[in-house]
Amino acid sequence: MPPITCTDRELMALSDGRIVDLACGDGGLATRELIEDVFLPRIGNEKLRSGGDSSLVSAGEKIWMTTDSFVVSPPQFPGGDIGKLSIYGTVNDLAVAGARPLHLSAGFVLEEGLSLDLLEAVVQSMGEAARELGVEIVAADTKVVERGFGGGIYINTTGVGATMGAIRLGTDRIRAGDALILTGPVGDHGVAIMATRAGLSFDTRVRSDCAPLWPLTGRLLEGLGDGLRFMRDPTRGGIATALDEVARGTGRDLLLEEMALPVRTGVRAATEMLGLDPLYLACEGQALLVVEESMSARALEIIASTEGPWEPAVVGSVGEEGGAVRLRTPLGGTRRLGPLRGDPLPRIC
Amino acid sequence: MPPITCTDRELMALSDGRIVDLACGDGGLATRELIEDVFLPRIGNEKLRSGGDSSLVSAGEKIWMTTDSFVVSPPQFPGGDIGKLSIYGTVNDLAVAGARPLHLSAGFVLEEGLSLDLLEAVVQSMGEAARELGVEIVAADTKVVERGFGGGIYINTTGVGATMGAIRLGTDRIRAGDALILTGPVGDHGVAIMATRAGLSFDTRVRSDCAPLWPLTGRLLEGLGDGLRFMRDPTRGGIATALDEVARGTGRDLLLEEMALPVRTGVRAATEMLGLDPLYLACEGQALLVVEESMSARALEIIASTEGPWEPAVVGSVGEEGGAVRLRTPLGGTRRLGPLRGDPLPRIC
Repeated sequence: MPPITCTDRELMALSDGRIVDLACGDGGLATRELIEDVFLPRIGNEKLRSGGDSSLVSAGEKIWMTTDSFVVSPPQFPGGDIGKLSIYGTVNDLAVAGARPLHLSAGFVLEEGLSLDLLEAVVQSMGEAARELGVEIVAADTKVVERGFGGGIYINTTGVGATMGAIRLGTDRIRAGDALILTGPVGDHGVAIMATRAGLSFDTRVRSDCAPLWPLTGRLLEGLGDGLRFMRDPTRGGIATALDEVARGTGRDLLLEEMALPVRTGVRAATEMLGLDPLYLACEGQALLVVEESMSARALEIIASTEGPWEPAVVGSVGEEGGAVRLRTPLGGTRRLGPLRGDPLPRIC
Repeated sequence: MPPITCTDRELMALSDGRIVDLACGDGGLATRELIEDVFLPRIGNEKLRSGGDSSLVSAGEKIWMTTDSFVVSPPQFPGGDIGKLSIYGTVNDLAVAGARPLHLSAGFVLEEGLSLDLLEAVVQSMGEAARELGVEIVAADTKVVERGFGGGIYINTTGVGATMGAIRLGTDRIRAGDALILTGPVGDHGVAIMATRAGLSFDTRVRSDCAPLWPLTGRLLEGLGDGLRFMRDPTRGGIATALDEVARGTGRDLLLEEMALPVRTGVRAATEMLGLDPLYLACEGQALLVVEESMSARALEIIASTEGPWEPAVVGSVGEEGGAVRLRTPLGGTRRLGPLRGDPLPRIC
């Protein structure tokens, strides 16, 4: 007897027209709406509503938990692969919460027909990335779906981490005058993926910035203490969407200097060719920091003296009440940055 | 500009012939080979190698972690849906480790075109199942993939739990003479899914047994103490594959009485019609227990007095050295049960 299977597409055909579209996954406005309309009313609680990428699950022991699914296409790209990304992505969500990554789980959804060589290369990358960070993958699961019901390889990683000291990071700790710092250039990951998909080649080959933010964030916490207010890794939706979340979280305006925002030449060239804004493209190894103004020089020192692909820069400051992100252009004008809307880049991470 | 996408199928076409096939996901022999050949050499460690569905991640505080991806097709079936299953499935992996479920994460991979009504119903089920158990979903993530690259809705849940007392469960604690107990009939989930796929209807409509094993396992631990040796929930691969794992883990023969194995009339009828063996079909709300022989009556009492779909039965006992599962047939013969091999039932959970 052949295996009895069933296409879920039959069920979808019954849909009355309200459907999930690709924009729901872009990390911008449509994703926020899906979360607020569909998920929070049904599985919401204080921890999920807080909107951070990690949640404190045990106040006594300060244990944090975060989850991320990786569906990036293609699974291998300049600078990394889905395996490395799945380890660093989840580690980075813990890192920007100020938590030391401790344990990871890995759940695989493989598509029938996936090359075993590719699978082995991806799992090898995961092992290397985890070992480099001293984090163990303590639980794993594998499912296989029929051809045409997957994208080769999808990986969920869930991470548990611990914070040590008494410092609490949060948008509620952000004050007017605080400095906005980027640890390095934006948009590398997004351009690397898109260029690979499109088969584009540029004079300057762009590689994904796929890298771990730990132990950098640990050193920043240690060195800046209370002067470190908040950290966020700008993945889907890019730095613009991350800044918008901070502005909405604080209710304050954020004032950015367009000239100060680090964008590599190759990224600039590619985005101009493709008609895209690098501020909306994913980074996978950089962080946005909000730091007490007097500590910003110290923050830059700490980043520069830590091993990693860092090119830190102060890119702006926190303003008064408002809740908008305002970008000062080189010509002295101001342009308002909203969250990503539409323009889906499916499967960027 | 249209979104730049890329089919991973182009990459698969480059495969030299070594591919992932559906049997790799059946939970039986082929899955074990995939784990041993591909995963353990690359991401293996003591915790993953131990082979349990949950790992102890913090010996001091006795914190456990487990992960499971759910890809069941169809997403709604008699007795449950993928949402309920994704909560109970992960809770049950903690429960059979003796751990109280504390926190869950949920990672969604949605396919473009998924009905929002279906998504809402599934998320509603998750919320209800989690609240019923007093477990919070503390972290969540959503990705959307293009049409033709998913199966409607896939969910990963990862769970963290805690064990309280000093009792340690494990196949190494199993002794000759111990009793094998099933909490209820086997094969209900497998038949419910297959019957739905095939559009079959039986006189006795079979419903999935999708149910939480917690707090039952907590009461068993409390009531049986050291007399409880080991627990396992027989999902993919069914009770036969779970028994094979125990036999291999202990190096002892397991002696089963075929007459004592509880199988519902509707499941019996359906499996006879489909030419399947109910012992290889998934359960999603029953457990296999190994109990010190003198405590087996007490175990049956505890199960029968706990609310839930239980119909407990002593189904066999642990024998001497050997490592095989031997089933005594009603006619007095003996048939050896191996793990599931081939005969894939893709997307059963």
